[in-house]
Amino acid sequence: METYKSIIAYDGTEFKGFQRQAENLRTVQAEFERGLRRIGWKEESIQAAGRTDAGVHAKGQVVSYRLQWRSQASDLTRALNANLPEDIAVRNTEKVDADFHPRFSARSRFYRYTIIFAEHREPLQERYAWRVWPAPDFEALDEVASWLVGEVDFRAFGSAPIEGGHTIREVYRADWIPTSYGMAFEIVANAFLYRMVRRLVAAMIEIGHHPDRKQAFREMIGDPSNRWEGTLAPPGGLCLERVTY
Amino acid sequence: METYKSIIAYDGTEFKGFQRQAENLRTVQAEFERGLRRIGWKEESIQAAGRTDAGVHAKGQVVSYRLQWRSQASDLTRALNANLPEDIAVRNTEKVDADFHPRFSARSRFYRYTIIFAEHREPLQERYAWRVWPAPDFEALDEVASWLVGEVDFRAFGSAPIEGGHTIREVYRADWIPTSYGMAFEIVANAFLYRMVRRLVAAMIEIGHHPDRKQAFREMIGDPSNRWEGTLAPPGGLCLERVTY
Repeated sequence: METYKSIIAYDGTEFKGFQRQAENLRTVQAEFERGLRRIGWKEESIQAAGRTDAGVHAKGQVVSYRLQWRSQASDLTRALNANLPEDIAVRNTEKVDADFHPRFSARSRFYRYTIIFAEHREPLQERYAWRVWPAPDFEALDEVASWLVGEVDFRAFGSAPIEGGHTIREVYRADWIPTSYGMAFEIVANAFLYRMVRRLVAAMIEIGHHPDRKQAFREMIGDPSNRWEGTLAPPGGLCLERVTY
Repeated sequence: METYKSIIAYDGTEFKGFQRQAENLRTVQAEFERGLRRIGWKEESIQAAGRTDAGVHAKGQVVSYRLQWRSQASDLTRALNANLPEDIAVRNTEKVDADFHPRFSARSRFYRYTIIFAEHREPLQERYAWRVWPAPDFEALDEVASWLVGEVDFRAFGSAPIEGGHTIREVYRADWIPTSYGMAFEIVANAFLYRMVRRLVAAMIEIGHHPDRKQAFREMIGDPSNRWEGTLAPPGGLCLERVTY
C-alpha cells in the first residue's frame, strides 16, 4: 500500500460541495471515492486540502489516499479519469510519504474570485463569474485589498472550521487583477475561515460601489468583536487554484 | 409596428441549435419567440443572421422582429431578459428600418473557435473549448490558415445553405491566436457554408499533428471536385462572435 497525492479539477456547478454527506447528495468526494473504488480502492475515506462549498470550482484541489497500485502514477491518473464523471478530472498524481496530509501539510492556498462587469446577463460568462453592475471603484478595491495582507484576525468575515478555533490567518497576497471582462480577486493565505473569500469579495464590491463604507470595513479587520453584515458573493465566481506544500 | 434588431448571446450547450424545429425541441429561436410572445409579440417568426448548430455558442447573434412597443429600445432589452431563460440574453436592442434583414443585410460574420492543449480532461474549460493533445505544430496551423484568405471555393469543406447554391466565400481574415490555455482560430468572411468552420478547424488540427498532409489540404482549397474526408471539430468550441452590417 502506497500513499498517493492527486491534484484534481472540478466544475462545482452540479455538486453539493466537496465533502461527502450522510444523505445521498452528489459531492466531489463521493464521486471521487466511487471512481477510486472502481479501480480497487477499499479504504474508508480520502483526505482533501479544503472543503469547497456547493457551486465552488477547483483547478488545484489536492486529495490523498492509500492504494495498492502496481503501475506508474501517470497510469493511475489515466485510470481515474476514465472512471470519474465529466465534471471532475485528475491533473496529476504522485506517490508521497505515508505521513503526507493534504490539509495539515499545506503551507498555503490560492483562491481566485472572478467578477465580470455587465449590465445584462452574460450566458457565456456567468457559470464561472459573478456579474456586477455598475463597475465598482477600482481604487477603493485596491486599497481595501491591501489591508488584508499580513497576520489578520478575520473573525468579522468568517468562522473557524473547528468550533472555538482561532480566526487569525496570514495573508501573503491579496490583489485585484484586471481581466478581459472585469476583474479577479486573487488571495493567497496559510489557511482560510469558512466562507471568508466569498464574504470578503462581497464586502469589497459593496465598498467599490459605496466608497464611504471603507472606514467601517477597515475597523472590522482585526477586530474580533464585530461581524460584517453582508451577503456572500455567489459560489460560481470562486475557484481553488492551487495548494502549496 | 416597428422593426427591432437585437444582439443576443447564448450558451449553446442545452440547445438543439438555433433554428425552431417542427418537433418540440429546445432551440434558441423557439425560446426567444416564447419570450417575445410574453411581452405581446404576435408575429409568425423572427429573422436571424445565422443558424448555429446544436451546441454552438453565440456572443453576437443578430435577430430582428416586428413589434408594437411604446417604450425605449433599452427597456425592450430589459423586458426580454426578464422573460428569457438563463442561457440566452439580449445584449442590445435598437430600432431599424423595416427593410433590415439580419441575414441578407449582413456584410460579414466573425466566428471564433477555441482550442485548449491538455493531456487530461479540463472540466472548467471544455464547455467552451475543444481539448487537443498533443499540441499541434503552430507553424503548420499559421501557414494553412493563410491559404483560406481571399475569394475561395470551399466546396470541399461544406455545403451551401440552399441546394445548388454556390460555394465561393470571401474570407477577410483567418488567424490562429495564442490564448492562456491553447489557441483560438478567428475567421471573418462575408458568409459561411454549412459546418465550414468546424470542418476547417478539424482539418487544420489534423495537419498540425501531421504536417505532411498540408499539400492534400492545399489542393482541396478552391477545388470543387473533391471533399475533405475528416471529422467535425466539436460544437462547444465554436462561437458566433459578431455580425457586421
